[in-house]
Amino acid sequence: MNKIKRVLIAGGTHGNELNGIYAVRKYERRPELIHRPSFETLTVLGNPRAIEAGVRYIDKDLNRCFDIPEGKETDLDYEVRRAREIKNQFGQAGQTPVDFAIDQHGTDSNAGLMLILDNLDCFTLKLAAYLSYRQPELKVYSSAASGRSQDSLRSIARYGVGIEVGPVAHGTLHAELFQKTEVLVCAILDYLEQYNSNTVSLEETSLTVYQHANAVDYPKGKNGEIQAMIHPRLQFKDYEALNPGDPMFLTFDGDAIAYQGSTTVYPIFINEAAYYEKGIAMYLTQKQQFQVS
Amino acid sequence: MNKIKRVLIAGGTHGNELNGIYAVRKYERRPELIHRPSFETLTVLGNPRAIEAGVRYIDKDLNRCFDIPEGKETDLDYEVRRAREIKNQFGQAGQTPVDFAIDQHGTDSNAGLMLILDNLDCFTLKLAAYLSYRQPELKVYSSAASGRSQDSLRSIARYGVGIEVGPVAHGTLHAELFQKTEVLVCAILDYLEQYNSNTVSLEETSLTVYQHANAVDYPKGKNGEIQAMIHPRLQFKDYEALNPGDPMFLTFDGDAIAYQGSTTVYPIFINEAAYYEKGIAMYLTQKQQFQVS
Repeated sequence: MNKIKRVLIAGGTHGNELNGIYAVRKYERRPELIHRPSFETLTVLGNPRAIEAGVRYIDKDLNRCFDIPEGKETDLDYEVRRAREIKNQFGQAGQTPVDFAIDQHGTDSNAGLMLILDNLDCFTLKLAAYLSYRQPELKVYSSAASGRSQDSLRSIARYGVGIEVGPVAHGTLHAELFQKTEVLVCAILDYLEQYNSNTVSLEETSLTVYQHANAVDYPKGKNGEIQAMIHPRLQFKDYEALNPGDPMFLTFDGDAIAYQGSTTVYPIFINEAAYYEKGIAMYLTQKQQFQVS
Repeated sequence: MNKIKRVLIAGGTHGNELNGIYAVRKYERRPELIHRPSFETLTVLGNPRAIEAGVRYIDKDLNRCFDIPEGKETDLDYEVRRAREIKNQFGQAGQTPVDFAIDQHGTDSNAGLMLILDNLDCFTLKLAAYLSYRQPELKVYSSAASGRSQDSLRSIARYGVGIEVGPVAHGTLHAELFQKTEVLVCAILDYLEQYNSNTVSLEETSLTVYQHANAVDYPKGKNGEIQAMIHPRLQFKDYEALNPGDPMFLTFDGDAIAYQGSTTVYPIFINEAAYYEKGIAMYLTQKQQFQVS
């Protein structure tokens, strides 16, 4: 068993997601809250210039920059340079390599309290099961099939999870979700402490995982202009079943556009502001049960 | 009686408030929806460069630029120049002066469907009473005491109202509020048509108005950093009574900060993202009844 020697808690990877930024500042002010005997806990504010400007990013989404090779025209982008800086500090070949990374995010979609897993290995599934037991409202999303396992900040660590909370408007703080995130972060640290001392006690349990299937864009015209909005019956209905024929979008003239798929799916990140420019109206997921023991 | 000869419908005065932008585009595509026999209806996208960039503004909040005198260093700001352009077109001394302006906005606070009045004259109060009768969920906010009567886009017209809808995250569309806004805009046009033909039929009615009292900032430290969030019991509780001693903010360490005022107030625009930089956590209002007949 490889013990966890160093943990990284990140916030502000997107500069307008305030909850994570203020959480990191709190932990820097009160390091005793994240101290655990068997490992070192570090913190980082991902994107200082974007935080200063109150925007998601300056040149490029930092959380998509961790797998960009050197020697391209993107070398001039602030976030590409910042990603290398972070990797040189905390990556596996860095100065203080971290074994586990927690990256805190916020979304205006109705994410509630979401844990994002990039891999479904046993270590990660057991952690997720433990956390779900501690906070039953926790939703677990696996991005394993999204092709995003290497470009995010958390990917620089041996293990990593993302935390998404919502709905919280970008550029705002949300007290209730701030406190729930803090409970979740502490539970992760507690688990890692137990893992290191081989004292994890977990009964066999069923874990629900929302597995990434694909992304859906807004209906668009020839000029690329959006032609329909999220249907009112789907707005804020993250994690709920969307069945073939259910209304998905509503045109500006009031016509419903139905979901055309052949199977039931569970949309998440519905109507996230930052995803408009990426051409993503929502992610569709499949709901799966894992037996974890 | 001075008839209404020309009406202006604006959207995108803030470039990331998508509902109003797409509403204007819809009306430009389908002018029959806003056509009324007795007056001309025009449309304008307030801040085209900010719309293109998907941000609230480029240099300065356009909706605070309509009373800035010429010959200052702000002359170089895009929005100061844009405000003059709009005023030269639609202002009282402009090319096509408008008698009535409707400016459509969105907020991440729980505004619901809000009508903003800058003046409480009889014409405006009757209009508000008519609209409240048609859409009983409508909330009426008077900014008369906010010192903001001349700096907004709507102030260039003889009469004007703002429409705020929320919660809608900046940079997103919200279908239900899009449709409710459309109903409200059409009702305003219907009223103006009846006004022109002297056929307004309005029984004596009681109108609730939330009158601007003052703005409240977040608790801040010496360095200007925010020290507390909106208290969970106040989040999304726009228009609800806040009594002396009620929790208002919550520090990052979990301590509640109570409302220190001596009278009951009704907060609105609670936790609006765009107001963080203005030092506004919420507006406090007083609730007043007007008898309108």
